[in-house]
Amino acid sequence: MAVGNESLPELRPVPGLRLATVSAGIKKPGRKDVVLIELAENSSCAAVFTRNAFCAASVTVARQHLAASEGRPRYLLINTGNANAGTGAAGIEAALACTRRVADCAGVAAEQVMPFSTGVIGEPLPVPLIEAVVPDALGNLSEAGWKAAAQGILTTDTRPKGVSMQFSVEGCDYVVTGIAKGAGMICPNMATMLAYVATDMAVAPGLLQHMLDAVTNTTFNRVTVDGDTSTNDACVLVATGAAANPALDDADSALYRALYEAVETVCLGLAHALVRDGEGATKFVTVQVNGGRNETECLDVAYTIAHSPLVKTALFASDPNWGRLLAAIGRAGLPELDVDRVAVYLNEVLIAEQGCRAASYTEAQGVAAMAPEDIVIRVELQRGQSDAAVWTTDFSYDYVKINAEYRT
Amino acid sequence: MAVGNESLPELRPVPGLRLATVSAGIKKPGRKDVVLIELAENSSCAAVFTRNAFCAASVTVARQHLAASEGRPRYLLINTGNANAGTGAAGIEAALACTRRVADCAGVAAEQVMPFSTGVIGEPLPVPLIEAVVPDALGNLSEAGWKAAAQGILTTDTRPKGVSMQFSVEGCDYVVTGIAKGAGMICPNMATMLAYVATDMAVAPGLLQHMLDAVTNTTFNRVTVDGDTSTNDACVLVATGAAANPALDDADSALYRALYEAVETVCLGLAHALVRDGEGATKFVTVQVNGGRNETECLDVAYTIAHSPLVKTALFASDPNWGRLLAAIGRAGLPELDVDRVAVYLNEVLIAEQGCRAASYTEAQGVAAMAPEDIVIRVELQRGQSDAAVWTTDFSYDYVKINAEYRT
Repeated sequence: MAVGNESLPELRPVPGLRLATVSAGIKKPGRKDVVLIELAENSSCAAVFTRNAFCAASVTVARQHLAASEGRPRYLLINTGNANAGTGAAGIEAALACTRRVADCAGVAAEQVMPFSTGVIGEPLPVPLIEAVVPDALGNLSEAGWKAAAQGILTTDTRPKGVSMQFSVEGCDYVVTGIAKGAGMICPNMATMLAYVATDMAVAPGLLQHMLDAVTNTTFNRVTVDGDTSTNDACVLVATGAAANPALDDADSALYRALYEAVETVCLGLAHALVRDGEGATKFVTVQVNGGRNETECLDVAYTIAHSPLVKTALFASDPNWGRLLAAIGRAGLPELDVDRVAVYLNEVLIAEQGCRAASYTEAQGVAAMAPEDIVIRVELQRGQSDAAVWTTDFSYDYVKINAEYRT
Repeated sequence: MAVGNESLPELRPVPGLRLATVSAGIKKPGRKDVVLIELAENSSCAAVFTRNAFCAASVTVARQHLAASEGRPRYLLINTGNANAGTGAAGIEAALACTRRVADCAGVAAEQVMPFSTGVIGEPLPVPLIEAVVPDALGNLSEAGWKAAAQGILTTDTRPKGVSMQFSVEGCDYVVTGIAKGAGMICPNMATMLAYVATDMAVAPGLLQHMLDAVTNTTFNRVTVDGDTSTNDACVLVATGAAANPALDDADSALYRALYEAVETVCLGLAHALVRDGEGATKFVTVQVNGGRNETECLDVAYTIAHSPLVKTALFASDPNWGRLLAAIGRAGLPELDVDRVAVYLNEVLIAEQGCRAASYTEAQGVAAMAPEDIVIRVELQRGQSDAAVWTTDFSYDYVKINAEYRT
């Protein structure tokens, strides 16, 4: 199940970046399960990884190689079907072996190859199968490979996810294209979110990392399906420099701001697509909290609502259950919260104010507000000037079914 | 659904405390929905209430009256069928009117009556119905009324919950008896946990409150069904003084320690009973975390496991999913967690160590360990001397069904 009926848009090539998608037979014979991404020489690269202490071996190695190459890796090697997580020291050696194979075939250093894995936790990575397809992948690299890669990085996602845009600054055109797979640490033993975003602008590695840290904080880090954090989450931002602008190294420039906006738009589009394809999702829910003393307390309220099983099951039932929303707001831990000032809207219908059901509210209004697939829960705290939003899904029978019946 | 097949044990009377259970027709005609508890003169009383900022009107008034009576209320008035929550200023007036009615009929001050409500949120409390049955309740007070009261405070619980015990100190016998209803803020618009525990020992009010604060911290505050906190939670501890010991006012005495142990045993028994009767529960799960640097980090790990929808759905499926357990431990936020030192046991079967599946582990062991209704998840952090445990349930289809289909 998934919310809406989105098809993959046209994904513009990013000059300086080539992709290949091949089949190694890791889990299912014939399935395209290995994606290789080649970055032009002098590309810069930034990445953010899961904060889970039990991170995958591939995450450990990718982090080390990004640092060792000083933000200038040449290849990203992605496999599905196996997360290389919960695999101990043998998993680290397996990830290293895969990077050495790419390095040997492509004539670069192993530290210039970053490995990524997604799939089942706890199974040994079948290194020979991956090694065997590396020459094939290198021989099939193409700037037009985005669409196949968007499909190739999926595991149990129901559809590919990609966003692409062009923008101009001072007469020069630039492109940002990204793909992702999801959605949350959702699937039984699956270890999940991966995102790859690239631009042809030239950007210094340190500034690119600064941008990615900020962008992920307002995009990928603001979506939640079930509150669990994957062992394998990674988001990569590449700047190939093929556009030949002087390398961007000033966060106050118009060029930086234009790129930032484009990357944020692409990442937010991908993040929302992950939620819409969340396991068992029947609703796409925006939780918007306004009027807090600071952003942190807005996020505390938003996540308490977004993670509440009682709110999520009510969303599944299209039940305008204002009592559960007030209860979630009330337990978010805000100091000196004056509940009489709080107002709650469902798709712009005022449902609760002054600690109780709004006088103007009718059950018919609430039922109508909850009917669409896209729901906005807006909370007005009226105690400050800060706002924040997070995006989530409902909690359905299918969520339990998918996550309980994995082995049956 | 509920775990196990527990019947209500014999509930010993507590000299100095009388109970009556009557029918006011608040929600269903004929249902026993009002419980009145009378405390002998000079009884002391302590209470802890929900920390939810959106607390019920009855909680606000009960808190005020406990303070105004200096810990010596004479009556506790409990109604089911209506939570008097989300009812604004009118709800406060309704709660006060009920306390005045008891006060007028019984010849005490209104501040000596504490009101408690449980049931649907957001509906006005039908004050006249409650007022009408107060004389009947006063006329039917009995020390033998515990069993009827255990039934009378229920809403959607599937069975009554009570624990009772006797103990002796220096040749004198004392009794502790308690009843509770649950279970978490589980039911659709229901606002839930209430517990009443009493002893015949004489205890100074301040020391009684000190004891209750400590006991709830290791009992009622260590159980979770869905992580939601009710607007109406309240736990009351009464000491009638009928045993005629010199009023206990020393936390270092043998008498205090004996009472503390008895009250903790009763409260833990009630808390476990709430979990076993949790909505949709098919498992009773103990999450025991040992070897932490301090109790707080043990609780962080325990609650991260207990609230993880992925862990809870795996428990429902009796799936020994060690990958989900490691992922939950890894995202609990412990500083400098060395994942290679962590060991995880399911009902004493070692399933994971050194960041991966234990070498000795077999799938058959795991399936056997997950088969019983009672499951112990034990995590050994091996980085300190602190331990902590919490208790929870699994996440089943019935949880979604009960909480999504309330209005259908």
